[in-house]
Amino acid sequence: MLYSIRNSQRTFSVHQFDFDTQVTQNANNLWTGTIDPAWNIGENPNGGYLLSCVIAALKQVMPHPDPVTLTTHYLRPGIPGAPFEVFVEMIRTGRTLSSARARLSQDGKPRLEVLGTFGDLAISAGIDSMLTVLPPPIPPPEACIQRTGDAQGIGLPIGDRLDVRLHPDYAVAGAAGDAKTAGWIRFLDGRAPDTTSLPLFTDTFPPSPFGLLGAVGWVPTIELTVHIRRQPADGWIQAEFETEDLQQGRMIESGYLWDSEGHLVAQSRQLGLVLQQD
Amino acid sequence: MLYSIRNSQRTFSVHQFDFDTQVTQNANNLWTGTIDPAWNIGENPNGGYLLSCVIAALKQVMPHPDPVTLTTHYLRPGIPGAPFEVFVEMIRTGRTLSSARARLSQDGKPRLEVLGTFGDLAISAGIDSMLTVLPPPIPPPEACIQRTGDAQGIGLPIGDRLDVRLHPDYAVAGAAGDAKTAGWIRFLDGRAPDTTSLPLFTDTFPPSPFGLLGAVGWVPTIELTVHIRRQPADGWIQAEFETEDLQQGRMIESGYLWDSEGHLVAQSRQLGLVLQQD
Repeated sequence: MLYSIRNSQRTFSVHQFDFDTQVTQNANNLWTGTIDPAWNIGENPNGGYLLSCVIAALKQVMPHPDPVTLTTHYLRPGIPGAPFEVFVEMIRTGRTLSSARARLSQDGKPRLEVLGTFGDLAISAGIDSMLTVLPPPIPPPEACIQRTGDAQGIGLPIGDRLDVRLHPDYAVAGAAGDAKTAGWIRFLDGRAPDTTSLPLFTDTFPPSPFGLLGAVGWVPTIELTVHIRRQPADGWIQAEFETEDLQQGRMIESGYLWDSEGHLVAQSRQLGLVLQQD
Repeated sequence: MLYSIRNSQRTFSVHQFDFDTQVTQNANNLWTGTIDPAWNIGENPNGGYLLSCVIAALKQVMPHPDPVTLTTHYLRPGIPGAPFEVFVEMIRTGRTLSSARARLSQDGKPRLEVLGTFGDLAISAGIDSMLTVLPPPIPPPEACIQRTGDAQGIGLPIGDRLDVRLHPDYAVAGAAGDAKTAGWIRFLDGRAPDTTSLPLFTDTFPPSPFGLLGAVGWVPTIELTVHIRRQPADGWIQAEFETEDLQQGRMIESGYLWDSEGHLVAQSRQLGLVLQQD
């Protein structure tokens, strides 16, 4: 579904993701918008969607087009349906890279603190190499299993925005025997992936301990770092996430995203909490 | 070698690392110190040492003892021998986790922007598991090769502070056939490792493409994220770093540190630039 936006000059159509992450400049360094509950996982806005609202503000001020590295510290859950503001401070503007910090607040309280560097991924920064990570062979999207809230025991409003297909080996709680998840992702309304939406895709699969430990409930993300590697080709994005280390409730999950041509387009790592279940 | 510090109350001894990262409170949110050239790699202060000066300031204000996750964006090289100031802003103080941002400046220009969350790693945050990464078997420190500037073609003043031993397979430029490095590290003056010094240890080995591509010169770090996993036991720290992906000069290097009892104590990831050699 496309939304229609009219301004004084013209009418144009935008996809849901771009509509739901719109920001308006409110002051020199301040951007405002509204958190749409359509991106909820359970009662909380998805962390990748919250980050996307910050990226939307960063894109307005950055002289370079692509997020190259973004780190987000999640301080408090977002509030679905409520307005937000993003304060942006440029830290350094360079010829090839520019850095800024940003803070998303709702109801007067900081929710996300972000540190990001942008660049132009179409331009080489040095030596090229054949060194990369190839996508592992997995069943095609039509042979994978749609992610549903039922399997996880939570509501998944975000399932009307994103088409997430899970590798059959990792779709059943506790059945995989390792702390891994894999599958495919795309926007349901046909929006093409780009360097701006890849960070969202790194935070929208079930937590990777799901296949080992069973349903682990809500895994709050403390910190998420995403490195964008190149502009993705159109089509499905293949994903893999693995938790190698879970000590005393603190897990480190590392992820890879590949585009439909098999290129590695993003890497991610997050620190999450696996809480005791009641 | 221990330094002796005298204040009005008493005389006490500190190790080099603690002496060279000392900060003094200058104003409410401002801490000052001096970048010691003893931690240089070539002409530039090591990035892990610069970060350690920021950590020293963060420790003064954080209500929790351990850095749990730290992300640093390196904006400009540090200036050896010159004073620095660290501006610290607390973002959130919580019961189990607290977050702050910090900026290290020299000569009026920001050099490092840091976003960090501290906690208490002696206290469990949730579910425990057997999931971890075990240290690979490597030759003991006495069978490894001391890191020298000669092998890399640069001066290594930091070699008088840190004892870095390289796995023989990864000690010769271009000979390993993969973009990996491994070995051991400790302070030369006998200071025990702790959660505060592990971030330094993640940034003091030769760049991991060294074993594949040969001498790659100075690899500027754009961004470094370190996750500290637990308090290390005394003794040598075992390390492994690998670059899985190097595209158009942008490398992602991931690292592991283990303590002398074989526990994973830190994970790191950095975005670095592999520049064209003249």
